[in-house]
Amino acid sequence: MTKTAALRNILSAPSIARIMGAHSPLSARMASEADFDAIWASGLEISALAGVPDANILSMSQSLQAAADIAAAVDIPVLADCDSGFGNVNNVVDMVQRYERAGIAGVCIEDKQYPKLNSFVEGNQDLAPVRDFTAKIIAATQVRTDPDFVVVARIEALIAGAGMDEALRRAEAYASAGADALLIHSKQSSPDQVCEFRQRFPGEIPLVVVPTTYHTVTAADLEALGFGAVIYANHALRGSIAAMQEVLEQIIQDGTSHHVESRIASLSRVFELQGMGRMLEQQVQFEKLAEARLAELELSGGGL
Amino acid sequence: MTKTAALRNILSAPSIARIMGAHSPLSARMASEADFDAIWASGLEISALAGVPDANILSMSQSLQAAADIAAAVDIPVLADCDSGFGNVNNVVDMVQRYERAGIAGVCIEDKQYPKLNSFVEGNQDLAPVRDFTAKIIAATQVRTDPDFVVVARIEALIAGAGMDEALRRAEAYASAGADALLIHSKQSSPDQVCEFRQRFPGEIPLVVVPTTYHTVTAADLEALGFGAVIYANHALRGSIAAMQEVLEQIIQDGTSHHVESRIASLSRVFELQGMGRMLEQQVQFEKLAEARLAELELSGGGL
Amino acid sequence: MTKTAALRNILSAPSIARIMGAHSPLSARMASEADFDAIWASGLEISALAGVPDANILSMSQSLQAAADIAAAVDIPVLADCDSGFGNVNNVVDMVQRYERAGIAGVCIEDKQYPKLNSFVEGNQDLAPVRDFTAKIIAATQVRTDPDFVVVARIEALIAGAGMDEALRRAEAYASAGADALLIHSKQSSPDQVCEFRQRFPGEIPLVVVPTTYHTVTAADLEALGFGAVIYANHALRGSIAAMQEVLEQIIQDGTSHHVESRIASLSRVFELQGMGRMLEQQVQFEKLAEARLAELELSGGGL
Amino acid sequence: MTKTAALRNILSAPSIARIMGAHSPLSARMASEADFDAIWASGLEISALAGVPDANILSMSQSLQAAADIAAAVDIPVLADCDSGFGNVNNVVDMVQRYERAGIAGVCIEDKQYPKLNSFVEGNQDLAPVRDFTAKIIAATQVRTDPDFVVVARIEALIAGAGMDEALRRAEAYASAGADALLIHSKQSSPDQVCEFRQRFPGEIPLVVVPTTYHTVTAADLEALGFGAVIYANHALRGSIAAMQEVLEQIIQDGTSHHVESRIASLSRVFELQGMGRMLEQQVQFEKLAEARLAELELSGGGL
Repeated sequence: MTKTAALRNILSAPSIARIMGAHSPLSARMASEADFDAIWASGLEISALAGVPDANILSMSQSLQAAADIAAAVDIPVLADCDSGFGNVNNVVDMVQRYERAGIAGVCIEDKQYPKLNSFVEGNQDLAPVRDFTAKIIAATQVRTDPDFVVVARIEALIAGAGMDEALRRAEAYASAGADALLIHSKQSSPDQVCEFRQRFPGEIPLVVVPTTYHTVTAADLEALGFGAVIYANHALRGSIAAMQEVLEQIIQDGTSHHVESRIASLSRVFELQGMGRMLEQQVQFEKLAEARLAELELSGGGL
Repeated sequence: MTKTAALRNILSAPSIARIMGAHSPLSARMASEADFDAIWASGLEISALAGVPDANILSMSQSLQAAADIAAAVDIPVLADCDSGFGNVNNVVDMVQRYERAGIAGVCIEDKQYPKLNSFVEGNQDLAPVRDFTAKIIAATQVRTDPDFVVVARIEALIAGAGMDEALRRAEAYASAGADALLIHSKQSSPDQVCEFRQRFPGEIPLVVVPTTYHTVTAADLEALGFGAVIYANHALRGSIAAMQEVLEQIIQDGTSHHVESRIASLSRVFELQGMGRMLEQQVQFEKLAEARLAELELSGGGL
Repeated sequence: MTKTAALRNILSAPSIARIMGAHSPLSARMASEADFDAIWASGLEISALAGVPDANILSMSQSLQAAADIAAAVDIPVLADCDSGFGNVNNVVDMVQRYERAGIAGVCIEDKQYPKLNSFVEGNQDLAPVRDFTAKIIAATQVRTDPDFVVVARIEALIAGAGMDEALRRAEAYASAGADALLIHSKQSSPDQVCEFRQRFPGEIPLVVVPTTYHTVTAADLEALGFGAVIYANHALRGSIAAMQEVLEQIIQDGTSHHVESRIASLSRVFELQGMGRMLEQQVQFEKLAEARLAELELSGGGL
Repeated sequence: MTKTAALRNILSAPSIARIMGAHSPLSARMASEADFDAIWASGLEISALAGVPDANILSMSQSLQAAADIAAAVDIPVLADCDSGFGNVNNVVDMVQRYERAGIAGVCIEDKQYPKLNSFVEGNQDLAPVRDFTAKIIAATQVRTDPDFVVVARIEALIAGAGMDEALRRAEAYASAGADALLIHSKQSSPDQVCEFRQRFPGEIPLVVVPTTYHTVTAADLEALGFGAVIYANHALRGSIAAMQEVLEQIIQDGTSHHVESRIASLSRVFELQGMGRMLEQQVQFEKLAEARLAELELSGGGL
């Protein structure tokens, strides 16, 4: 099965899809090992790794490269966080073509203006006109060449303080425009807001949530409520930050890495995650095959 | 002071330089916060982050981009791990010019063949001919335009099993060729090997060590023995791997991120490391300055 | 039909494939317009455009990016000039996976050492050991996931002065190892050398030639002789250099661009090659569709 | 002298600066050979080379990479066409820091919205609010670390049909905000419009023009009128397109490259522009120096 079909399937399956945020091929590979169903190529994680604000400071091509590298490293599908589409409808057309070519299973675009600002930050969270964003959804679904390539419309009305009715109105427009799933975003500390949305929005289209602030809710709860996917959007990065800070402070304090050895991964674990062993095995295998082939041809003499 | 001069100074200062490995602008910024003196743009860390073996699978330009992004994110100098120089002497010429232009304070090249294999892995660790590597050191020091740009020669004779005499012979050649510092690499579990090298190599040139396997030694010990710098080459990444694995496994097991919240960094910490607050403050400041300027010019009316 | 199958087909078709060198999406699109059958993502052209010697100064990832951008711009297949494979067999494994993912139809690797030097330059043209290059061909054909992805083995024995017998011996090894085509390279001013090779090498495998120096030969001649493809490897770039030099000198001499207007492309031609008109048409179309959809939903009121 | 100071000087010198558009290191190097004073890293040329519309389809980082590669290839300064600054004031802050670090001598930003559309195309040419663009100019001049880094404000009021008074009003605002030069753009077929602007705008600030459509005017005329610089923004690319089309069509028609040989650059000219000879000379030199050094050290025996 293609990765695009795999992503499409897990979004609409009866069981909820558990999607893990990643910022690198390494963290994505670990999420795959841990049995997550798909990867969220997270704008927050990727911009944080790059040391720049999550505010479209990273460019489309930098975001694409990060997502493409992640997609190449795992067998599970990657849904790419594409902010508001990196510009207007023309940028979305170009973006979809590039992301699809790069082996990414789907894109998620949100109905804010360019440049967008992270949804958890106080500042400009102005919504895009419905018409403009609807045109982006239509464009995205029309220019994909693989009909299974997934287009997720992310609704920021609750983030922007525009109210539930506006969120529902936009949901109807984007679903009607051909979005394959809707991501309803909320920054409340309880899931009440997204639950109300789920109850009031009747369609069959899969609904995706990101319980960053309302983290008491479980995947089982969300599945029972009828959501299609849950994204843990930034936790691997946040775990890595906490751990790196401890390791760095301890080394500088102790003047040695000796006391952190017990809580850091071994070198052999690093090599395993890099695929070092597999590379070296393949090298030997290909060299032996070459020698065998040359022996058959009786070409193996002289200056080989 | 320029970053190149800063790196040069800390290598030759009486106190030992403490250099931290990094794989990203984020981890470099945290190392700077933790008070390390410089950053090692680690080939192992950067290739592991990218999910590929540490074997020159990442190209020169990918390695350069990673190191340049790191350099742009911190005020402390960056010493870039450049493997064996990405090819022959012509590649080293090009490499030095590019790394210098990219704001990196110095490069470290090792006397193995291209493609190199990580020094802690069993496999081809063949040394380059002394002549070829000496030519690379001469080239690197002649084509830099900033005389403070640092060129470190890394000696792999002990890794390759070529013996202490060979290591010393090569050290003499590279120092004579103009290297600014020597990195003597060892994979023993005690510092005895590098200590013997330090005792037998009499020069003034700074010596750098990487106590990945002999981690009981302290920076104070190494300083007392006369070493110029110690590199903790991969610990932040290894700490992040261990932490991410715990976070990922717990979320998948619990079906919620609730129970990892206490040991992951907060969102506000992520924003701080990204420079989000500073960006938003500057935005307000520049907009206010613009309004004030237009008011002075009495241009602020109409369709502004 | 996929691009990989298309490339495979034109190489083995009765009529000779006419393949044009390109250095950019622009020049590739023009070659496609002019009715060439495929594109050669030329190492010489791409490195010359970048202003660096054709000697593996450009990295694998830079070469890949250039070829991928070209492939995205045209409907005809792209065969990428991959020099000697950017390193050893491990680099070839990685390279093939990346080039295939990037939508390139095939790769050509040559049996010289890394870093390679352009075949028309006096200098190190040393051949790789047969065993090593055979292992690369085996690796390339085994790690591709699309069985139609094309692997061309380029034989440099005649360039290196190793003689016809060596060229034939290597041809047999590489064909036996699974190469999909052989490129027999020659820098003679007549086609005699490649013709002798064609006569003495009996296999069915398609043979490719690059008549840069023996340019009197025609595609019809080569087809009659039994060659599968002819590559015009660098002529578009060389034409552009001659023209740019004239334009630049005339402008500086005249102090105006007025007198070059008649022999440069119009702005509208530039826009056409960029796809500007198509983009603007699509923009209008998607916006109209969005308005129609919103009108149907009666969502078009208020703050849309 | 730094390249930033060099650019600053030629803009304010009594003689008019002749600035040539480039799309690649190769074309920039040829412009430098032809004696132009500076390079315009042209958005139109670079996007056309990439085969995409000149409408911010290329991202900031792609534009930066192109300009940085050009800057690395020439000794004359590069002024980068940065469209409308790739977003809002925050994007401009990031952009200026990146362009300055990349060795580019200055940036030019225009007072249109993001995404911009090429000024010679019918479509959305809406101007940005004066306040927003003034904030960008203030930001650009405040965040540069090299006070000589040049910030050019490009006025699109005449392109947008907003009239001469609006152009003058904006010129005053941008000059007051600290712009180092003003580019007054016009798409008329005569220079009358820019001449009127020159006469009515009294300041000392250098004025730059781009006589793409009014190409009868000469640099001498413009110098006499008091302009500081003239940019020939796209002629090298347009010359290359015309020439490549001829070459491609002739080869496909003739079935040989024989008949284009006389009007394309020789291979040796290509090698010269790549710096091939210089690289090979340096290689020999560094290898000889290494041998001499080892001979002095009497280290040249055994397995060297």
